[in-house]
Amino acid sequence: MNDPSIRHEIAHLARVELYTPNPDGTLWFFTELLGMYETHRAGQSVYLRGYEDPYQWSIKVTEAPRAGMGHAALRTSSAEALERRAASLKDSPLAGKWSDGDFGFGQTYEFASPDGHNLSLVWEVEKYQAPPELRSKILTRPSKRPLKGLPVKRIDHLNLMASDVTAVKETMERHLGFQTRERVVDGNVEIGAWMSTNLLGHEVACMRDTLGERGRFHHVAMYYGIPQHNIDAAEIFREYDIEIEAGPDKHGITQGSFLYVFEPGGNRIELFADAGILQFEPDYETRTWQMADIDTGLAIGGAHLPWETYFTYGTPSKRTLEEHKAEFATAGPPPPPTH
Amino acid sequence: MNDPSIRHEIAHLARVELYTPNPDGTLWFFTELLGMYETHRAGQSVYLRGYEDPYQWSIKVTEAPRAGMGHAALRTSSAEALERRAASLKDSPLAGKWSDGDFGFGQTYEFASPDGHNLSLVWEVEKYQAPPELRSKILTRPSKRPLKGLPVKRIDHLNLMASDVTAVKETMERHLGFQTRERVVDGNVEIGAWMSTNLLGHEVACMRDTLGERGRFHHVAMYYGIPQHNIDAAEIFREYDIEIEAGPDKHGITQGSFLYVFEPGGNRIELFADAGILQFEPDYETRTWQMADIDTGLAIGGAHLPWETYFTYGTPSKRTLEEHKAEFATAGPPPPPTH
Amino acid sequence: MNDPSIRHEIAHLARVELYTPNPDGTLWFFTELLGMYETHRAGQSVYLRGYEDPYQWSIKVTEAPRAGMGHAALRTSSAEALERRAASLKDSPLAGKWSDGDFGFGQTYEFASPDGHNLSLVWEVEKYQAPPELRSKILTRPSKRPLKGLPVKRIDHLNLMASDVTAVKETMERHLGFQTRERVVDGNVEIGAWMSTNLLGHEVACMRDTLGERGRFHHVAMYYGIPQHNIDAAEIFREYDIEIEAGPDKHGITQGSFLYVFEPGGNRIELFADAGILQFEPDYETRTWQMADIDTGLAIGGAHLPWETYFTYGTPSKRTLEEHKAEFATAGPPPPPTH
Amino acid sequence: MNDPSIRHEIAHLARVELYTPNPDGTLWFFTELLGMYETHRAGQSVYLRGYEDPYQWSIKVTEAPRAGMGHAALRTSSAEALERRAASLKDSPLAGKWSDGDFGFGQTYEFASPDGHNLSLVWEVEKYQAPPELRSKILTRPSKRPLKGLPVKRIDHLNLMASDVTAVKETMERHLGFQTRERVVDGNVEIGAWMSTNLLGHEVACMRDTLGERGRFHHVAMYYGIPQHNIDAAEIFREYDIEIEAGPDKHGITQGSFLYVFEPGGNRIELFADAGILQFEPDYETRTWQMADIDTGLAIGGAHLPWETYFTYGTPSKRTLEEHKAEFATAGPPPPPTH
Repeated sequence: MNDPSIRHEIAHLARVELYTPNPDGTLWFFTELLGMYETHRAGQSVYLRGYEDPYQWSIKVTEAPRAGMGHAALRTSSAEALERRAASLKDSPLAGKWSDGDFGFGQTYEFASPDGHNLSLVWEVEKYQAPPELRSKILTRPSKRPLKGLPVKRIDHLNLMASDVTAVKETMERHLGFQTRERVVDGNVEIGAWMSTNLLGHEVACMRDTLGERGRFHHVAMYYGIPQHNIDAAEIFREYDIEIEAGPDKHGITQGSFLYVFEPGGNRIELFADAGILQFEPDYETRTWQMADIDTGLAIGGAHLPWETYFTYGTPSKRTLEEHKAEFATAGPPPPPTH
Repeated sequence: MNDPSIRHEIAHLARVELYTPNPDGTLWFFTELLGMYETHRAGQSVYLRGYEDPYQWSIKVTEAPRAGMGHAALRTSSAEALERRAASLKDSPLAGKWSDGDFGFGQTYEFASPDGHNLSLVWEVEKYQAPPELRSKILTRPSKRPLKGLPVKRIDHLNLMASDVTAVKETMERHLGFQTRERVVDGNVEIGAWMSTNLLGHEVACMRDTLGERGRFHHVAMYYGIPQHNIDAAEIFREYDIEIEAGPDKHGITQGSFLYVFEPGGNRIELFADAGILQFEPDYETRTWQMADIDTGLAIGGAHLPWETYFTYGTPSKRTLEEHKAEFATAGPPPPPTH
Repeated sequence: MNDPSIRHEIAHLARVELYTPNPDGTLWFFTELLGMYETHRAGQSVYLRGYEDPYQWSIKVTEAPRAGMGHAALRTSSAEALERRAASLKDSPLAGKWSDGDFGFGQTYEFASPDGHNLSLVWEVEKYQAPPELRSKILTRPSKRPLKGLPVKRIDHLNLMASDVTAVKETMERHLGFQTRERVVDGNVEIGAWMSTNLLGHEVACMRDTLGERGRFHHVAMYYGIPQHNIDAAEIFREYDIEIEAGPDKHGITQGSFLYVFEPGGNRIELFADAGILQFEPDYETRTWQMADIDTGLAIGGAHLPWETYFTYGTPSKRTLEEHKAEFATAGPPPPPTH
Repeated sequence: MNDPSIRHEIAHLARVELYTPNPDGTLWFFTELLGMYETHRAGQSVYLRGYEDPYQWSIKVTEAPRAGMGHAALRTSSAEALERRAASLKDSPLAGKWSDGDFGFGQTYEFASPDGHNLSLVWEVEKYQAPPELRSKILTRPSKRPLKGLPVKRIDHLNLMASDVTAVKETMERHLGFQTRERVVDGNVEIGAWMSTNLLGHEVACMRDTLGERGRFHHVAMYYGIPQHNIDAAEIFREYDIEIEAGPDKHGITQGSFLYVFEPGGNRIELFADAGILQFEPDYETRTWQMADIDTGLAIGGAHLPWETYFTYGTPSKRTLEEHKAEFATAGPPPPPTH
């Protein structure tokens, strides 16, 4: 259980940087299929935002030899909260360092999760201001709904693979004030945790890396908010040769409507079609899923989350997605974790 | 290609009788979860209709030692059409015979498909007349939308397994005027056919029985007409312990939105959540799916139609559903058909 | 009641030509917002098709001084049916004449409704063949779902205003084999009729022109097939300054999900979001709505079909849409028809 | 702008008590149409909860001579927060008093808004524990989705009419830490305010009472979370004679999908079909709608919020709903407010 006094220090997930060996393909995916607006280019990076993302960008696509997550940044709820969270980390083995920020964001505190994921905290942001032709009549919408693809509204959440889920979870709780809303245990081993600092069922999740690798990225989710949109998105992905891994269906965990695909660079992207469970209770107690009930936790409908990718493939990967599937299609699940 | 002069002799699929060894469970499924109205009881049978079914019943639940399809009846487009179709069958090896009809339906011509499925043709029907408290304000709706479960509107289509798909298909075409809208071939062998006499993508389908058995029933589909309803239905089935086989997702074949479940008696039921492709062209040409493209044909999204049930389990079955799954889970698909 | 022998002579509504004084605006509406493909240009006309329209075009946009319907064409179910229907009309006071056809369509029989609407019958068509990059993996889909706007699948139905609804209705029944599925009467006067030759609740409707003008066009409907799409479309129309007249909501009549907008040229366009009631009964009897029940007939939800446009504005119009609204906003409904 | 240190003192809206002169009708509405569970009866009151409401009840139906809101209670984020908020109010002209609580809730601080609405603060609650037969497999769901009507998940938000919107708003901001997310101004007069202490676009709204009355109730909203559900709910309301006031449609303000009906006791109930805009920015600035843009604010589609009820009818009302409509249908809007 975390310290209530720090429960609101982190406001929300602000942005994720994705590495891609296929930058043209990745950009086409996000702009033509998911209707994201390009707001900036610099070096090998392109900055993108959904039409309801409030800042200059939520996704940064950076050319790199292998797919993966460059970093993910959380926005604090105040300048003071940023100082406090940085101080808390600085006093810990995780340490970290200040940097100057990036396009549209100010001073940033960078650190690594116990598993090695690059994470950041930031307070200063530049709010996106639409030019007249992109202004929406809906005042809470920073820009018009675009006319390309099936446009996502905003970034939703981040899912990390870890060799040690509990260590990542405890960092999020202790230093950043996250609450663990749901977790999955296999015997005594915690193999999944869904964490949040606000009403959302989760903004950061962590799942056990069944290959035992460290610091890999599972997926980032973009938000539609309309269940039907995942059905429509699946049809678009099918027509335009984007590989669908699983869905559309609804997780029991978080009650989120999911659709998982691989963008052309090899990263897994989730389309999140509704808000899922919103958690209002201030004295909510973590729900724990046992393996015996996991079937409902994974999918309420008949969807099958495939062992050969969903539970084994993360980025960076030593193999291409095709190689990975070929290798794991026949391998089958490993023996259960021992304790 | 069938004879255009008989293309409109069959109007539509009117009713299906299901056998069940668990009549209480099957009735609970259809009335409490699918919101069907009970209109009659006689002997070991209960008669049910969806709130937009135009006649006295579309589903008859009959207690029997094993699950299966009692019979299915098609309504002709006139009394004369019934005479002509009966005469056509009478002159064929399939033959058949007249019977007196059943509750709410008149004189019936009964015959067996080449694979042995019990099929009927009927013209005389009693239109359902709602009592005042069940009358809808919507004049094309024969009765109010009920307040139980997630109510289905009407029967949609029938799917038969057959040891010889082509023989069944040719009977439907030659004697009943069906058009084959889509088919699947594996080399030279026709392993699936979707047939219709009206705008629907199919009212009768036939799929190869991979176990080589004869005259088995694959499923009957009930119609929602609203894609979201299958998502909601899946949640209800999950909550109330109805086994979901696959879906919600959308077939490429027929473009129908599917959700397959097993009712408590062991028969497979499909919830059909939208109209799918409506076929307007009078000179439409049958589309043929090759095995290389079947992935899209089976599901546009990521759904997995499981070998151990979808392609092997039909009713009547020599094994219970649980036994069947246990046996086929490890067996894997057979070698491809040889020609 | 019409003659059963001609019930299937007309297969479906194939195409509508729209006149527009603002061709750039009208084209932008159909291609950028409704995602229609342009297939041809000739003279002052551009030819468009939805991604599931089977022929070369379903909408032809033609520059003209005033908005209105150029013509609408129905496809017969065979070459012989075309000959028979043309002969039937030729022997009537409506007469008509043969013409050479248009892009993608062959020999055409042109005639005018009793109210003066330009109607055509055609059999010969050129099926649309997608180039490789537009081919869909879904075999019943003539071309890929496009990535622009919220794409409509196909043309759905046509609605005509008439000074005398009964005369138009009787022409459709007697010469073309249409069935009247639903009608609205005000005392003894028939003020609306919804007609079909297939499962659809209507392909041609006719509503009384309350201004007593002749031969005007009320709307053409484009088909989505997904109820959520009308909600999404409304948002797009709002964002991109397309005037919404009414909806999204669902009519009791036809059970169709509607959204009415005015395209930039001034014609009313309906987005039809689901199939509505499909009518299977070969011996279906026309339902008649009385004015006392019309509230449900017009809308099942709370939508308001405005007198100042929906019941008075058709094209061609003596006034612009803005002038019309200004004039009729204060006038209020006329006294009921006397008989 | 409120004091950031109190921004998280209120967790969420917990419950609303409704007065009804027709308790049987009101209960039937909430249990048979909206699928709420009854959890308790005492005196003239019945306690109800949606299947995802976390506590013993969210709606209390109490027999009374006239419709209206008995009270509404907000839950604080801790016991200390309750003490602090009570102390803040005690020092103000609003004062208030402690009471012993109600079924399933502990000690309560009761006070009146500046306009006279009965409001309460509470911390101690009894979490709902489902009996085995009502337990859901979904661990974040306190009870199974029921099989009656179209079940709502939980209470969503409260809307109050006030003679002085600004005074109510300032109380919510100053004493309870609410943020005003959106407001509508007519010249210098604030005529609407939407307020929240969490991600929701609003949990409490206040709109100007155009009749100048004090302390009236506009509506309470129940949450579906699925846009399609409002379309289905409208059909159910139509079939079962529940008067629909407006919708389904989507507000520009809050981006919430609405459907307004009058329950049989005369109170207005909103069905809220999706989460609307979720507000993540800790430094969000209030958006202000001008009357010139209010059309989009009220509805993104074509819905019409009727003057004769939506802007004038609240409970308690001096007239029955029927009398009110009759009187205001012809009166038309008053002159705009002067300042």
